[in-house]
Amino acid sequence: MRELTDRLLEGLPAAAVVVDPDVTAGYRQDMAGFCASGEPAVVVFPSTVDQVRHVLRTATELRVPVVPQGARTGLSGGANAVEGCIVLSLVAMDRILELDPVNRIAVVEPGVVNAVLSRAAEEHGLAYPPDPSSWESCTIGGNIGTGAGGLCCVKYGVTSEYVLGLDVVLADGRLLHTGRRTAKGVAGYDLTRLFVGSEGTLGVVVGATLALRPAPAPQLALAAEFADVDAACAAVCAVIEAGFTPSLMELMDSVVVGAVNRLGRMGLPESTRALLMVAFDGPEQRRELAEVGQLCKRAGATEVVPADDQAESELLLKARRLALTAMDTLGTTMVDDVAVPRSRMAQMLAGVAEIGERCGLTIGVVSHAGDGNTHPIVAFDADDPEQVRRAEESFEEIMALGLRLGGTITGEHGVGLLKKEWLAQELGPVGLDLQKQMKGLFDPLGILNPGKLF
Amino acid sequence: MRELTDRLLEGLPAAAVVVDPDVTAGYRQDMAGFCASGEPAVVVFPSTVDQVRHVLRTATELRVPVVPQGARTGLSGGANAVEGCIVLSLVAMDRILELDPVNRIAVVEPGVVNAVLSRAAEEHGLAYPPDPSSWESCTIGGNIGTGAGGLCCVKYGVTSEYVLGLDVVLADGRLLHTGRRTAKGVAGYDLTRLFVGSEGTLGVVVGATLALRPAPAPQLALAAEFADVDAACAAVCAVIEAGFTPSLMELMDSVVVGAVNRLGRMGLPESTRALLMVAFDGPEQRRELAEVGQLCKRAGATEVVPADDQAESELLLKARRLALTAMDTLGTTMVDDVAVPRSRMAQMLAGVAEIGERCGLTIGVVSHAGDGNTHPIVAFDADDPEQVRRAEESFEEIMALGLRLGGTITGEHGVGLLKKEWLAQELGPVGLDLQKQMKGLFDPLGILNPGKLF
Repeated sequence: MRELTDRLLEGLPAAAVVVDPDVTAGYRQDMAGFCASGEPAVVVFPSTVDQVRHVLRTATELRVPVVPQGARTGLSGGANAVEGCIVLSLVAMDRILELDPVNRIAVVEPGVVNAVLSRAAEEHGLAYPPDPSSWESCTIGGNIGTGAGGLCCVKYGVTSEYVLGLDVVLADGRLLHTGRRTAKGVAGYDLTRLFVGSEGTLGVVVGATLALRPAPAPQLALAAEFADVDAACAAVCAVIEAGFTPSLMELMDSVVVGAVNRLGRMGLPESTRALLMVAFDGPEQRRELAEVGQLCKRAGATEVVPADDQAESELLLKARRLALTAMDTLGTTMVDDVAVPRSRMAQMLAGVAEIGERCGLTIGVVSHAGDGNTHPIVAFDADDPEQVRRAEESFEEIMALGLRLGGTITGEHGVGLLKKEWLAQELGPVGLDLQKQMKGLFDPLGILNPGKLF
Repeated sequence: MRELTDRLLEGLPAAAVVVDPDVTAGYRQDMAGFCASGEPAVVVFPSTVDQVRHVLRTATELRVPVVPQGARTGLSGGANAVEGCIVLSLVAMDRILELDPVNRIAVVEPGVVNAVLSRAAEEHGLAYPPDPSSWESCTIGGNIGTGAGGLCCVKYGVTSEYVLGLDVVLADGRLLHTGRRTAKGVAGYDLTRLFVGSEGTLGVVVGATLALRPAPAPQLALAAEFADVDAACAAVCAVIEAGFTPSLMELMDSVVVGAVNRLGRMGLPESTRALLMVAFDGPEQRRELAEVGQLCKRAGATEVVPADDQAESELLLKARRLALTAMDTLGTTMVDDVAVPRSRMAQMLAGVAEIGERCGLTIGVVSHAGDGNTHPIVAFDADDPEQVRRAEESFEEIMALGLRLGGTITGEHGVGLLKKEWLAQELGPVGLDLQKQMKGLFDPLGILNPGKLF
């Protein structure tokens, strides 16, 4: 331990090496529930690539595990410390190094907060689309580690679509450059995308070249109320099948609608059992909204409320923004993240409701409906071990259901600790074998974020 | 040899195993020049996944190299046979298994021709965007192997953006499923994208789940004439910087303009030394074309011709379609494929002109200008060994120039045999080392498309 900090201090300033247990305890975990964590031996805050390389060389030499961390807003325990590890916090590496409107790229350090980059891009009329709910605090490095998504993905895709190149410090301290600064490029294997979503298990991202897009116009939304969630799912399918690509398409089931209605005093009638929000940001947004409104009515919407302007749009979307807070009023909450083909979303939601009933738990679902990406939110009493057990059980059943419906155990939150038992099932034996071999290739000593993913 | 065909025939119908040297010689190479090829021992045409697995198991058992082939329209020698190999042609696996408008996916076998899929998608109001020039004949499997691009990439991206999941037969015959059918998913490492662009060196793609998009409206184009290529490059940068995202943005330099003008009798004045084509397919295409026209004039365009309708658009784009044919009138041609940041394209084009002069060769450049993806086309006399030598030399110099300008040696054609010496330079020692280890992990015996990439 003394040896570890001494060696770290050879390459890091004293202020960047923290061993005070009162402080280090604060770096034990991200925002996932149900996940174990250990006590870090030390938390380091490097501010240069060379310092990160020194940390990794030291870790390799002394065989100490390294857990990379961003803002710890993750929901799968992927950033949880393991006992005696070096927590490698990248938050001090938070510079935007370039923002280039002609080449539409940004070059950033990993600790840059998503919202900071988004606003910097905005000043040039550009956008960095991936917008996880935690965008005001989460870091680009964390977004890359988890392959983060968000509300905009139905039109603009996820993090991996925007990562052109990476600088990565490998387990042994070597510095790897992947990818490119050009719009296109196919020279060699795509290691860039291999690192996106690898949750710090293959290397430590210390720099990223990101693609930007022209900033879209402000979106205009509608809210459609449905008497049952099946009809709302049918509307989602009808809208996509008709060729629309909304900039947002969010669905709340009856549990979430009820909680939001109470908390936000939205005045929705009791008969509203599902709420669908659809927005467009293109030049034809008014026409598109009108047509989508018609499709919703045809699918059984009891009420369709299109926004007339930006302000009304914001009001409508407020209900969606309240969803998690509203669910928090019902107990301790755990957010799941199962994506299914959108044609199967109705089955998924029916199945989750059935699991909630069977487990005697309140489970509300908010979905990025355009992507078939459901977030079942289990509310339970964390002081009641029996309820905790049933909450965990419901989580397992929800993942099993997602796989049965041809889906994935994680649409955008990652595997971390929470879902590692299930990853094997999704990948199958051949896939799992290759992924483990890949991990072994990059991290032969097993010091990089050990125990995550596998 | 006898043993090889006997073993192959245990799992393949006789008609699918071809050893007649007159026939097999036809499968020696793709469309790249300057690349060596060997005589295949046998060409097989499996029609099922099981048959492919049998071929790979046999190859592993007998330690025979396997070269996967699609339509052999590649331009880097990536599909060239090696002496004594099994050529594994996937053209008989050409079924579209699913086309699902609600989930916007297609599930296809690797031998499906790009144009066949595109037309099938069109019938559902959908599009499969990647559109390499060879789209009427090239296969989806080949597109995946090379990470193919095309004219649409400036707006719609390249092949890797559209591959959601793959079925891959590994070197030892095991069947691997990667990815997903859902819009989003981050379960484990992204092996799907690792296979895209891997040129058959890691496994044989036998099935693909592809993302489709709503079919765009027909595009409307303008042509802008410039007195020099620098001004045209400045126009490209201005258009992108102003926030436009054209559906096509192609640039021809003076050599190509001259050749096209002569062949197509376009009647362009001698003063036209560069021709830029820009198209839009969105609802505001007329306004966008007008504004882009203004930007071109401001950058120095001597003439801007916007199309009034679809038919005029097609006429304007005809010049671009003639580019390769026109260059073929000047000698044997070799097409290069170097992408640079678009802000560096003017330097790239000036450098290529200078290389052409120094080597005493005619080099014309047609570029996917919106992506900074240049295709220098070297025209030479293939019967003159000295010219051939200088053509090869110019190729090398063009790649070196691209790398110096922060670019990549291949934007969309791949490395194959043609550029393997240069891949090492682009990747650097750490990257090269990891990529080679990756190859060793998937193909420990080195039987999969040996000698390609590295």
